[in-house]
Amino acid sequence: MDPDTFRREAHRLADWIADYLAGSRKYPVLSRVRPGDIAHALPTAPPAAGESFDAIFADFERVLLPGITHWNHPGFFAYFAITGSGPGVLGEFLSAALNVQAMLWRTSPAATELEEVVLSWLRQLIGLPPAFEGVIYDTASMSTLHALAAAREVAVPAVRAKGLAGRAGVPRLRVYCSDQTHSSIDKAVLLLGLGQESLRKIPSDDEFRMRVDALASAIREDRADGWLPIAAVATVGTTSSTSVDPVAEIGEICRRESMWLHVDAAYAGVAAMVPGYEAILRGAEQADSLVVNPHKWLFTPFDLSAFYCRRMDAVRSAFSLTPEYLKTVEAAPVRNLMDTGIQLGRRFRALKLWMVMRHFGVDGLRARLGEHMRLARLFASWVDESEEFERLAPVPFSVVCFRAVRKGLDEAAIERLNERLLETVNQDGEIFISHTKLHGRFALRLAIGNLHTTDADVARAWELLQARARRF
Amino acid sequence: MDPDTFRREAHRLADWIADYLAGSRKYPVLSRVRPGDIAHALPTAPPAAGESFDAIFADFERVLLPGITHWNHPGFFAYFAITGSGPGVLGEFLSAALNVQAMLWRTSPAATELEEVVLSWLRQLIGLPPAFEGVIYDTASMSTLHALAAAREVAVPAVRAKGLAGRAGVPRLRVYCSDQTHSSIDKAVLLLGLGQESLRKIPSDDEFRMRVDALASAIREDRADGWLPIAAVATVGTTSSTSVDPVAEIGEICRRESMWLHVDAAYAGVAAMVPGYEAILRGAEQADSLVVNPHKWLFTPFDLSAFYCRRMDAVRSAFSLTPEYLKTVEAAPVRNLMDTGIQLGRRFRALKLWMVMRHFGVDGLRARLGEHMRLARLFASWVDESEEFERLAPVPFSVVCFRAVRKGLDEAAIERLNERLLETVNQDGEIFISHTKLHGRFALRLAIGNLHTTDADVARAWELLQARARRF
Repeated sequence: MDPDTFRREAHRLADWIADYLAGSRKYPVLSRVRPGDIAHALPTAPPAAGESFDAIFADFERVLLPGITHWNHPGFFAYFAITGSGPGVLGEFLSAALNVQAMLWRTSPAATELEEVVLSWLRQLIGLPPAFEGVIYDTASMSTLHALAAAREVAVPAVRAKGLAGRAGVPRLRVYCSDQTHSSIDKAVLLLGLGQESLRKIPSDDEFRMRVDALASAIREDRADGWLPIAAVATVGTTSSTSVDPVAEIGEICRRESMWLHVDAAYAGVAAMVPGYEAILRGAEQADSLVVNPHKWLFTPFDLSAFYCRRMDAVRSAFSLTPEYLKTVEAAPVRNLMDTGIQLGRRFRALKLWMVMRHFGVDGLRARLGEHMRLARLFASWVDESEEFERLAPVPFSVVCFRAVRKGLDEAAIERLNERLLETVNQDGEIFISHTKLHGRFALRLAIGNLHTTDADVARAWELLQARARRF
Repeated sequence: MDPDTFRREAHRLADWIADYLAGSRKYPVLSRVRPGDIAHALPTAPPAAGESFDAIFADFERVLLPGITHWNHPGFFAYFAITGSGPGVLGEFLSAALNVQAMLWRTSPAATELEEVVLSWLRQLIGLPPAFEGVIYDTASMSTLHALAAAREVAVPAVRAKGLAGRAGVPRLRVYCSDQTHSSIDKAVLLLGLGQESLRKIPSDDEFRMRVDALASAIREDRADGWLPIAAVATVGTTSSTSVDPVAEIGEICRRESMWLHVDAAYAGVAAMVPGYEAILRGAEQADSLVVNPHKWLFTPFDLSAFYCRRMDAVRSAFSLTPEYLKTVEAAPVRNLMDTGIQLGRRFRALKLWMVMRHFGVDGLRARLGEHMRLARLFASWVDESEEFERLAPVPFSVVCFRAVRKGLDEAAIERLNERLLETVNQDGEIFISHTKLHGRFALRLAIGNLHTTDADVARAWELLQARARRF
């Protein structure tokens, strides 16, 4: 693309994106296309000759845009609602243009060193001690995978050289989490060759927190049966209800049993920077590793997962190897970030987080997280006051789990009512909420995480839910 | 960031990036900072109050930019040289603003369906049959990891449920690759719990291609010793010399031995679209899986790795699981891309590749790949004509391996000469080359992959290398 064309198109896109970020409200938040609509509207083969960016962008607006579910919409309340904030989007634009690989220090010293600096900033904000070394991965799935790989490395001597298969001396390995833990833990144990049975899910209490007594007795039972417990995952902000496991108590058990403690604070970890919320990470300072995702609730465009580890050497032991073509000699010792990951290539992700943290400042970040929690409490208060809805879990952060209820309906009928309500309200296009199950009960989930979401948006969501529920 | 500020700053950045992409030649290609320079120039704690984007961007230019190694510089000849082309950069800008997650069809149908469409386009271009289903991962490391996980799934019944550890019936597993294969294969077998010893590196011939006779006898030997061969990795475009393994012959062995064949065509696979180069993927149509990276040599900003698999169900068997909070019901069956990957969150990466392929068109892509190979042959011809340098490998694509030689110097002295030459020429700032070892010999590596690289840049590299070598 010649420089003049690039300049013209970049300016056009700057305007389009500025309009989009300010005005995504005009789109239906959940895409209304049917399966296959988009694919069928596109040519089955690539064009032989190059096309103008005009034509490409026109097709983006005409064909693709109706197939976008608008994660940056103020009415997006599904899953964990997120924001690609302005400074973060600009950081990505710049990062794409630089296109550097942060695999070796030398392949862009600024990428490696800025990653160190911003991860130190974030670490301080959430109250972890300096003993935690940080590295950026793409997703929490990868952060957790690396944590459990390190746990396996520590627990099974020679796993790196000899693996797990066909070795008489290696017992079956156990990892513990609660029945509320994210599916990425399951996927990690599958990939690591531990097998799904190696993951023992400990029951949660009536506030969806791991039961420490049940963990202790499971470990006793497993040891007696010949399993080797290697790790536990405690969650601060579970995916369904954002409950907080008793990290300190789980940590005590891990220390006593010589198990790795990984804390999955992917969503809620950032809340520890809000005055009054420091205690949510109580005990995490003793963990072996922790993940927190700025792309979830710190206004950073996806992807950026921050992994902190007090034993990063175990991660390096599990993975680092340097082929000749990647050997470098520098004027002083350097960290090469490829040594702490399964992926060799690494984007310059620290740039966007740096821009986000500086743009908002600590006060600004705290205020916005606090505001999201206020909105969630506000919505929860309406649910609590209503005769037609009930709340299904505490609201420690910015997510509310609730459902519509009706006198005389049994549990199965209430579930059907809420399934219909979910589908209908999402079809309207003004809001998008998701669902989960909490101890067997179908729950609607309203998650607040978008910077543009206001009192009016939350009120509108409540109005829509009530109106729709009344029609059934 | 308020809409007016975003608009102003996006326009400023559009101009800066347009200037940068057109004028990166003015920077030293390899950063000259010393270890710690960048980190020491930044505050150790985040700012309490938000700062203006003016201030942030000023620090980017003042502090970070000197620490950037310029991958988009026409003199970048190291590793695999790449290009973040204009349409690709614009695609990333747009993708960051939309900030959609392509984990479920519903979370943005356009992201899932465009991924399907552009991967079909690329598949057709490189001559793979429709039986190959595609999915986009971040890196070739992850593509290969998924391939080997699927191979493990197929070879070891119940690995998903029961894992590898402590199971009497599971033999030790073998994976084969050549001694030229990329380190990501090593990292994958480590992660999968197979252990480093499970990876048997087959010797390569004098043109750095896997020796098929040696592979066959290794498998015989291993079976006799009780190993279970599960997979072979053939490379089309090895990292050191870009040699091409005999894929068809390796494939025959894999079929006979019921082994998974994975083809690592991360760098060179795209060359199969160039008329006259179709044969480089001969045999790949029979492979189980193949990876090709548009972020390497198809002008797409990092990251985008295209994984093709004829048995994607094996990948799904290895990984797919759907917790309640991710269950959806659609009007017709849909693919949810989270089912083919270890990562749940997925960026909307297809957008940039779509923009790149449409902008250049097939003819344009072919012409540019052909041009890079012409430049490499040109450089190689100068090396071949020189008394002071020698070529160390064939040049099938866009990479030349060579070294300076001097009469009367022994091998050790020649190595030292070339190490000094590498260091010195990279310090100059006009070019950046890397090195490797080829059958024990230290080799300089000049890789062409940037769209701005011209005859004059390659000539300048040759001039600098000659001039520097003469001074020693």
